[in-house]
Amino acid sequence: MKNVAVRNIERADAATVEALGALGVATVHEAQGRTGLLKPYMRPIYPHARIGGSAVTILTQPGDNWMIHVAIELCKAGDVFVVSCTSDSTDGMFGDLLATSAKARGVRGLVIDAGVRDIMELENMRFPAWSRAVSARGTVKATPGSVNIPVVCAGQLVNPGDVVVADDDGVVIVPRATAGEVLDAARKREAAETAKREQLAAGKLGLDIYDMRPQLEKAGLIYLDSAKDLEK
Amino acid sequence: MKNVAVRNIERADAATVEALGALGVATVHEAQGRTGLLKPYMRPIYPHARIGGSAVTILTQPGDNWMIHVAIELCKAGDVFVVSCTSDSTDGMFGDLLATSAKARGVRGLVIDAGVRDIMELENMRFPAWSRAVSARGTVKATPGSVNIPVVCAGQLVNPGDVVVADDDGVVIVPRATAGEVLDAARKREAAETAKREQLAAGKLGLDIYDMRPQLEKAGLIYLDSAKDLEK
Amino acid sequence: MKNVAVRNIERADAATVEALGALGVATVHEAQGRTGLLKPYMRPIYPHARIGGSAVTILTQPGDNWMIHVAIELCKAGDVFVVSCTSDSTDGMFGDLLATSAKARGVRGLVIDAGVRDIMELENMRFPAWSRAVSARGTVKATPGSVNIPVVCAGQLVNPGDVVVADDDGVVIVPRATAGEVLDAARKREAAETAKREQLAAGKLGLDIYDMRPQLEKAGLIYLDSAKDLEK
Amino acid sequence: MKNVAVRNIERADAATVEALGALGVATVHEAQGRTGLLKPYMRPIYPHARIGGSAVTILTQPGDNWMIHVAIELCKAGDVFVVSCTSDSTDGMFGDLLATSAKARGVRGLVIDAGVRDIMELENMRFPAWSRAVSARGTVKATPGSVNIPVVCAGQLVNPGDVVVADDDGVVIVPRATAGEVLDAARKREAAETAKREQLAAGKLGLDIYDMRPQLEKAGLIYLDSAKDLEK
Amino acid sequence: MKNVAVRNIERADAATVEALGALGVATVHEAQGRTGLLKPYMRPIYPHARIGGSAVTILTQPGDNWMIHVAIELCKAGDVFVVSCTSDSTDGMFGDLLATSAKARGVRGLVIDAGVRDIMELENMRFPAWSRAVSARGTVKATPGSVNIPVVCAGQLVNPGDVVVADDDGVVIVPRATAGEVLDAARKREAAETAKREQLAAGKLGLDIYDMRPQLEKAGLIYLDSAKDLEK
Amino acid sequence: MKNVAVRNIERADAATVEALGALGVATVHEAQGRTGLLKPYMRPIYPHARIGGSAVTILTQPGDNWMIHVAIELCKAGDVFVVSCTSDSTDGMFGDLLATSAKARGVRGLVIDAGVRDIMELENMRFPAWSRAVSARGTVKATPGSVNIPVVCAGQLVNPGDVVVADDDGVVIVPRATAGEVLDAARKREAAETAKREQLAAGKLGLDIYDMRPQLEKAGLIYLDSAKDLEK
Repeated sequence: MKNVAVRNIERADAATVEALGALGVATVHEAQGRTGLLKPYMRPIYPHARIGGSAVTILTQPGDNWMIHVAIELCKAGDVFVVSCTSDSTDGMFGDLLATSAKARGVRGLVIDAGVRDIMELENMRFPAWSRAVSARGTVKATPGSVNIPVVCAGQLVNPGDVVVADDDGVVIVPRATAGEVLDAARKREAAETAKREQLAAGKLGLDIYDMRPQLEKAGLIYLDSAKDLEK
Repeated sequence: MKNVAVRNIERADAATVEALGALGVATVHEAQGRTGLLKPYMRPIYPHARIGGSAVTILTQPGDNWMIHVAIELCKAGDVFVVSCTSDSTDGMFGDLLATSAKARGVRGLVIDAGVRDIMELENMRFPAWSRAVSARGTVKATPGSVNIPVVCAGQLVNPGDVVVADDDGVVIVPRATAGEVLDAARKREAAETAKREQLAAGKLGLDIYDMRPQLEKAGLIYLDSAKDLEK
Repeated sequence: MKNVAVRNIERADAATVEALGALGVATVHEAQGRTGLLKPYMRPIYPHARIGGSAVTILTQPGDNWMIHVAIELCKAGDVFVVSCTSDSTDGMFGDLLATSAKARGVRGLVIDAGVRDIMELENMRFPAWSRAVSARGTVKATPGSVNIPVVCAGQLVNPGDVVVADDDGVVIVPRATAGEVLDAARKREAAETAKREQLAAGKLGLDIYDMRPQLEKAGLIYLDSAKDLEK
Repeated sequence: MKNVAVRNIERADAATVEALGALGVATVHEAQGRTGLLKPYMRPIYPHARIGGSAVTILTQPGDNWMIHVAIELCKAGDVFVVSCTSDSTDGMFGDLLATSAKARGVRGLVIDAGVRDIMELENMRFPAWSRAVSARGTVKATPGSVNIPVVCAGQLVNPGDVVVADDDGVVIVPRATAGEVLDAARKREAAETAKREQLAAGKLGLDIYDMRPQLEKAGLIYLDSAKDLEK
Repeated sequence: MKNVAVRNIERADAATVEALGALGVATVHEAQGRTGLLKPYMRPIYPHARIGGSAVTILTQPGDNWMIHVAIELCKAGDVFVVSCTSDSTDGMFGDLLATSAKARGVRGLVIDAGVRDIMELENMRFPAWSRAVSARGTVKATPGSVNIPVVCAGQLVNPGDVVVADDDGVVIVPRATAGEVLDAARKREAAETAKREQLAAGKLGLDIYDMRPQLEKAGLIYLDSAKDLEK
Repeated sequence: MKNVAVRNIERADAATVEALGALGVATVHEAQGRTGLLKPYMRPIYPHARIGGSAVTILTQPGDNWMIHVAIELCKAGDVFVVSCTSDSTDGMFGDLLATSAKARGVRGLVIDAGVRDIMELENMRFPAWSRAVSARGTVKATPGSVNIPVVCAGQLVNPGDVVVADDDGVVIVPRATAGEVLDAARKREAAETAKREQLAAGKLGLDIYDMRPQLEKAGLIYLDSAKDLEK
């Protein structure tokens, strides 16, 4: 594999990215047909952060964070780093120095299929990160990888410039090309959910709202009055 | 397996359930002879919730949350959902809409051997959940399971109507039939612990309180003055 | 294996221990040449604790916390318990009673390659713990182990009297004999990082600060203007 | 929990047990409505063993194999040990001495949610075992458990006297009371599969045998001639 | 997400596919610049199978094997199924009936990021499979997925028609477009390795063959005569 | 950390090493007081190998096998490589070329807390390996580690020159200094086990051989005639 760093990538419309970020992971994931979600082992390092941004992708060797330094130069305000390793690693590839540098350039956060360190400092400076691990394990700078090539991160294909949405529920990727239509669908879904939420809060049942009873009967669900009827 | 939903289950006395919930997981687990604990991978979605309730049990297909809708109709105020899957899953089977519906009917919380989503919203509405994962992964409603049959959840047999106690330490199940005697034992244990805690806080040693020295000697423990004596 | 409890161990200088604790895990780990770190599955039971202390080591049978009682008598103010099991366990070997006793004797915290319980109570009394699990699972007191012998805890050799530093990033061990020189190195590192942090915050790149460009070129990294150049 | 050893248990009809064993795990699991399967981490210690037997259940403390000695006295020819621990363990609770003793009494094999050792010797004596781990880790005999009480083993409730079927695919439990009807269903299933296997071997498609095409269309599956049509 | 089944895909040249299969996973992976490897949890169900084939990709819902039936109709002799689930699953999605059907159509094997069953039967019929689990867990046919779309399987992007090479070392994917040049590189590598193997077998050191000594010295490696020199 | 390669190490007596290897892991582990065992995730790459040898220890960076080349020069006939990584890795650090080189110098096998590749070739040349993973993932040669320093491998401290015993049950380490006395103890244990095995094969119970009945009664075990007595 050639090791390349691609300087210029296309990004989605900034307002679209912001709006997707505000809608949050669960809504966006559903709105694009239940796709794009990273594996659930990707957890935030502190609660209640919610971001949207444009993916700057980074492929690294395990235990080696050299490429993150390369990536910082190539990012723009509103970007989010998406870091993948060539094999599974929990090493602490990113800490408060890199966060300081990234923040100075307007990077909004980090999604890394490896470890993060200095998490208290990152929380204090409100630089959110989603990772598979927290680890102080230091890394070397010996072997190049690539920046801004397609990567698989936590089970999900990510292209540079894709939209990254991350919150307490995890991380979802929206392809750049469909960001606009996903935003439309997400807004519709949110509106529909607001209406349903009111009905449900008033005590109406999902069984009735979604008219599930005939389907359940057809699928073979049997209602029994009590456990005693089980033995019959 | 027939797919059934049992409408009516017996529950433990409401005051007993409340009291067990207040005593907490560790005390109740010890009081019933160190039984009833779910595996420790079951973690709360936010810190410092503590509940007691009556189990409404739900068995689902992985990636399919249809039966939770069925269960909501069958629950009463003070119930807790206990969800088991036919095979291991982390999918986000439960989110803020289901929580809104459950809360409207007085359900106190959720114990699910799968994933939960919208966890910030659940925290904001104070609807606690204990789960094996947080995941936004959406689910289908295609295959029925059962409600209010015995299930194994996170390694523990749970019968409908059993008492569920959950807090920061995890989740413990108390069989309905023995809830009263477990409550008595738990109160006694708590009283005994309070007395011991005072002694320990005053600097008295467990070795002396529990008279462990002779047993340790009999079991072969040898005291050495320093590491140098190890080589002798 | 003989089961021994060693009464007297040598500890590092108290001021050195304090200073290392204040510097934190990531800095100390780097300062001693990226060694000494426990595996990243060791996580704090509540956020934002940071301690330094002298290791009192404990080797136990899984599901048996007898030796912790033995250790409490042998500890001094400023100590930290480091508990290892003869095989992997998540049992709740340590709870609020043991914490009360340990705190009464000046113990600063717990590092345990097993489970902890009563974590809300431990948080309330500010007794920090780093563990592989939270679990209410009760333990027996049936089989002796040892106190103050060398143990492997979460992948790291720990000798009694070694310095334990623990915070949100995990746990690092500093051998007693080198604590002073590690402290010197850590302070130098911290000073150097402060200088770099200012440069990075001002927008200067790590690529330039560390003069990485020639090395990256030598290692074969190629810059491309856009993804289209990839296909060439 | 009281520690009890129940001397006499009811077993299923011997011929039924044999016949279920011969049919194998996948067929029996399907025949009883896709229930009864232990978690897939339970793997055989050597390939190509296939057994059916009556469960003698054993509950042990982790790291303590005392109860297996108790169980051997209570077993009969044709029994299979089903061992559960009070918490997760991989310790080598069972080796060639226990296997020699068990074999002398006609026990057919072992299902253990923990570790096994001496596996080459067990293979040589054709004493099969299904376990979560292979480990030489020795155990103590210090704390009693129980024999022939209901246990949860690898996620499955097992009652003493239930039928255990195990082969390369894993382990399935058939409740004693329904063993006969499950056998009937399994034989029917096997016959049906034989017929289907012939059709499939002849190149006929499952799509046609099961008449899936209309259902797939109804469920929304769209056929495209080529990937180019995806973009339309 | 639309659920589609793409009937016609482009495949690599048959002789190239065969040749890559014969070279094996490690050689092919290295020859394409250490890319394309699936995660190491993908293991063969029996030892010593080695195949090359063209990927027919399948995306399924966890616990639902409907799409595999759809895929069988769309495959050709020399194909290999590559199955991905929308979330992690170990369910036994593939057994001897599907293998019989697949074999009748010339399919060479299965790569599945889920479970397989009837593994003894599959071994007997020499239908190899690489999977994350062996499990008899039965599946439903209720929710459509897709066939012959790009999927991520065990951390690796797979496009329909890509070359799949699998053996005891795991599974590697070669993009269709570069199969020819990877084959050339792999043959060169194999030839070079044969030469090196002879030198190494004759006792020559890799240190000398690859001229590593100056680089090691430059990287800071220090040779000591004995452990005593460590303390200096 | 300085990166060092220690040329000369002390080894245990060759006949003692051979004899310990022949006795096998379980016997040796028990004979030295249930110590020295590596974690059970260390599994052989093919069945039925059994070796004893002297440890040449290797510490590597994850994804970097440079130090194994250094170690080959420093080994002698009868040695076994023990490889530890600075953080968890499954990369395929060792394959048939290194095995050819090692075998040419009389190395008996490999114990590696990482991955191995070319496992069919290693089996064919009868070069056994115990590892945490099988993986074809290629590695770099960029960052030095150390050879023949104390390492922690799979949870166990290993000093250069310690005796390594490995078979189907896993891997155990015997400190060089105590190898002779452990051999004596292991031979005694084996002799005692042979006698017991005969008694057990003849149907005598462990309960009687070890006189466990009074202890079980004292520990509170209650015998019941049938499950009905449980309810009393």
